[in-house]
Amino acid sequence: MNPPPAEIGTSVADIDTPALVVDLDALDRNIAKMAEFSRTTGVRVRPHAKTHKSAAIALRQIAHGAVGQCVQKVGEAEALVRGGVKDILVSNQVVGECKLRRLAALAQDFGVELGALVEIDVGMERCGVLPGKDAAALARRIADAPGLTFRGLQAYHGRAQHLPTHQQRAQAIASAIDAVRETIDALKAENLDCEIVAGAGTGTFTMEAESGVYNELQVGSYVFMDTDYAKIGNKDGGLYTAFEHSLFVLASVISTPTSERAIVDAGLKSYSAEKGPPWVHGREDVELTNVSDEHGKLVLGPKAKRLKLGEKVWLIPGHCDPTVNLHDWYVGVRNGRVEVLWPVSARGASI
Amino acid sequence: MNPPPAEIGTSVADIDTPALVVDLDALDRNIAKMAEFSRTTGVRVRPHAKTHKSAAIALRQIAHGAVGQCVQKVGEAEALVRGGVKDILVSNQVVGECKLRRLAALAQDFGVELGALVEIDVGMERCGVLPGKDAAALARRIADAPGLTFRGLQAYHGRAQHLPTHQQRAQAIASAIDAVRETIDALKAENLDCEIVAGAGTGTFTMEAESGVYNELQVGSYVFMDTDYAKIGNKDGGLYTAFEHSLFVLASVISTPTSERAIVDAGLKSYSAEKGPPWVHGREDVELTNVSDEHGKLVLGPKAKRLKLGEKVWLIPGHCDPTVNLHDWYVGVRNGRVEVLWPVSARGASI
Repeated sequence: MNPPPAEIGTSVADIDTPALVVDLDALDRNIAKMAEFSRTTGVRVRPHAKTHKSAAIALRQIAHGAVGQCVQKVGEAEALVRGGVKDILVSNQVVGECKLRRLAALAQDFGVELGALVEIDVGMERCGVLPGKDAAALARRIADAPGLTFRGLQAYHGRAQHLPTHQQRAQAIASAIDAVRETIDALKAENLDCEIVAGAGTGTFTMEAESGVYNELQVGSYVFMDTDYAKIGNKDGGLYTAFEHSLFVLASVISTPTSERAIVDAGLKSYSAEKGPPWVHGREDVELTNVSDEHGKLVLGPKAKRLKLGEKVWLIPGHCDPTVNLHDWYVGVRNGRVEVLWPVSARGASI
Repeated sequence: MNPPPAEIGTSVADIDTPALVVDLDALDRNIAKMAEFSRTTGVRVRPHAKTHKSAAIALRQIAHGAVGQCVQKVGEAEALVRGGVKDILVSNQVVGECKLRRLAALAQDFGVELGALVEIDVGMERCGVLPGKDAAALARRIADAPGLTFRGLQAYHGRAQHLPTHQQRAQAIASAIDAVRETIDALKAENLDCEIVAGAGTGTFTMEAESGVYNELQVGSYVFMDTDYAKIGNKDGGLYTAFEHSLFVLASVISTPTSERAIVDAGLKSYSAEKGPPWVHGREDVELTNVSDEHGKLVLGPKAKRLKLGEKVWLIPGHCDPTVNLHDWYVGVRNGRVEVLWPVSARGASI
């Protein structure tokens, strides 16, 4: 584990770079807003730790009423359990004896049987069985298996989160809701009770919450937001503008070769770029145009104030989840000071 | 640091996934081939550790005649020094008192003055001063500064590595060579000796080696290769086919929802995808088409042999450097067994 890029109490100006910085005020407002939504609608929120990979942030969400956490990997579950999180759903297929043994060991720590959800394909065309009879047949096998309890359905529509218009998202989620209803009916015919219907993301969660069938929201990105969500929000408003950017990659200018160009010390090893380069926060006159492994090229507009050698820029990542996974530490800042250093507890925990 | 996904001596079939796997025979052949080139041409090779971030691989390259290692970050230099590497060039701007102190401390461990290269922009339009007089003026300031020695020029043309045709690459490097010559003349006028002219990458290194002016090759990707290089090689041959794929992300099938689709347990947190998705090694009938954070979607051709649940696939990363940076361990395999487990010593060392 690399050393943290700052000490608690130091000024923001003294954070070494590149650093993964969290604006704690913005983070807290995002968490409070989702908690308020859960309270007023009565729909449970189980945020996805694949986004933040942090026990500290998980506990903050739980303190604000979240019922627990989702993870994608057994290693993430192990990291969160070590960090004090007690209620975890692995919202992904767990395949192989080694991983299943580790999962069982974690569950036995709390003296419970392993509950299982059946994933149905609600339009994402990734994992999951077909809704209806196929799902009910799998649920029956789980219910009849020793050591397992059938708990409900995993019905996440990932693609819907990134559809460009409200109408497209509403259509996609309406179709997901139909698939869930059909499956609940098929489960009833098998005398199986469907306690949990889980799904939803930051782009659509109000739709699932209003459905009357989904009762657990697996929202992730709302804590941080990123440009991938912001691009939709800028055109279409909606949920994408309900939350604030709280996650930044802090970078320093290491070269100013011309008046139109400045180079920063953060590239593909500090933020993921498959959704495009990051934005420069608070500097609409500056665009990050070229990304290489350890560099980002900033192009300055004709009237832009020149950047100085050593000057810091705040980058908003294109995609928050894989960006977080590159860092060992969150530097949490408030009022211009470093308030907390949180380890990215499940960084690299992909197994 | 996460636990390694295998034990030494176990069968390749028992490696847990996702895992970063190195074919040691292919790695050794790549290293030997570059060493042979250096011997026959008399041009020094200083491989770039930004690619592998591994002290073990660095020492293997040095044992085969490499004069040392390049790094991009002070943290990478620290990790390599701890791993026993004694001759390191930071081929990048080091800005800020904290980083400069760490660099000086490392150099003092070996009782030497800090030597410095002047980076010239040879066509990459990233960092670097202009060739000729500007470069000579900066070199003069270095030579006159206490504690610093002017050693030569950093003249890497990164963009040239990925130009699609031999002719385009030859033109770009010819222009870089002209820029170097112009600068050497300007240095002579300042009575400054240019001991080192460093640059070159896996796509062009024979051109720099033949130039008569470059004398240190900073090749990185040749040890592993990736699809970004292979795509050029498939069209244009040349250097891109001189080396073998030795780096893989081993993944497992976790879902087989239809006969045309299989899902693996490795996504953006196990390989970088800004150069496109990885290729499936040895299975030209299978294409990885959609990448998400923890999943890859495999599409099977009409005559493809179906993939089974739990089956392993070997993925060739689109871009090796940022892929390596996602992992804590190399699993080195030979003859179907795990022979070594090497830590990715400088994983995440971006500061």
